[in-house]
Amino acid sequence: MTMAEATALLADVPGWELLDFGRKLRRTFTFHNFMLAQSFAVETGNLCESENHHPDISYGWGYCTVVFYTHKIGGLHRNDFVMAARVNALRMP
Amino acid sequence: MTMAEATALLADVPGWELLDFGRKLRRTFTFHNFMLAQSFAVETGNLCESENHHPDISYGWGYCTVVFYTHKIGGLHRNDFVMAARVNALRMP
Repeated sequence: MTMAEATALLADVPGWELLDFGRKLRRTFTFHNFMLAQSFAVETGNLCESENHHPDISYGWGYCTVVFYTHKIGGLHRNDFVMAARVNALRMP
Repeated sequence: MTMAEATALLADVPGWELLDFGRKLRRTFTFHNFMLAQSFAVETGNLCESENHHPDISYGWGYCTVVFYTHKIGGLHRNDFVMAARVNALRMP
């Protein structure tokens, strides 16, 4: 999709930002310790495995960063935004 | 520790490399899928939590990267190398 299309879709995924000129989608979530960050990483990873759409996940003390992009098109697909919204939902109370 | 000291200790942790002029220690492990990488991340995270020495962990399809450094000294401590060796041991058959 174009950068303009990606920017428009951002409104549907609060907290996410575009990287690499619209080729990737990233959000960092914060936590109060290491284990909460790891648990969120795993919850995110398990969700994505079930959809066979794998993100890059980074975590450490107090944070977990998730990056989506679609390898086979070298950029973003609508499905990346669907997954980002589902990851946001994991974080909701 | 000095860069020379860190370089000498690298011999004890095969596969690890120095980053940021000897301030950090990193290794990337490869896997055949996403879930194996995630499982290794968690095994590493659990070990490090038990030692209260938290790395930065990144993973995705087929890889898991672990970075150690000691926040309170802004660089490497002997303990980082001890932890790196223990992470290597997790990967051994």
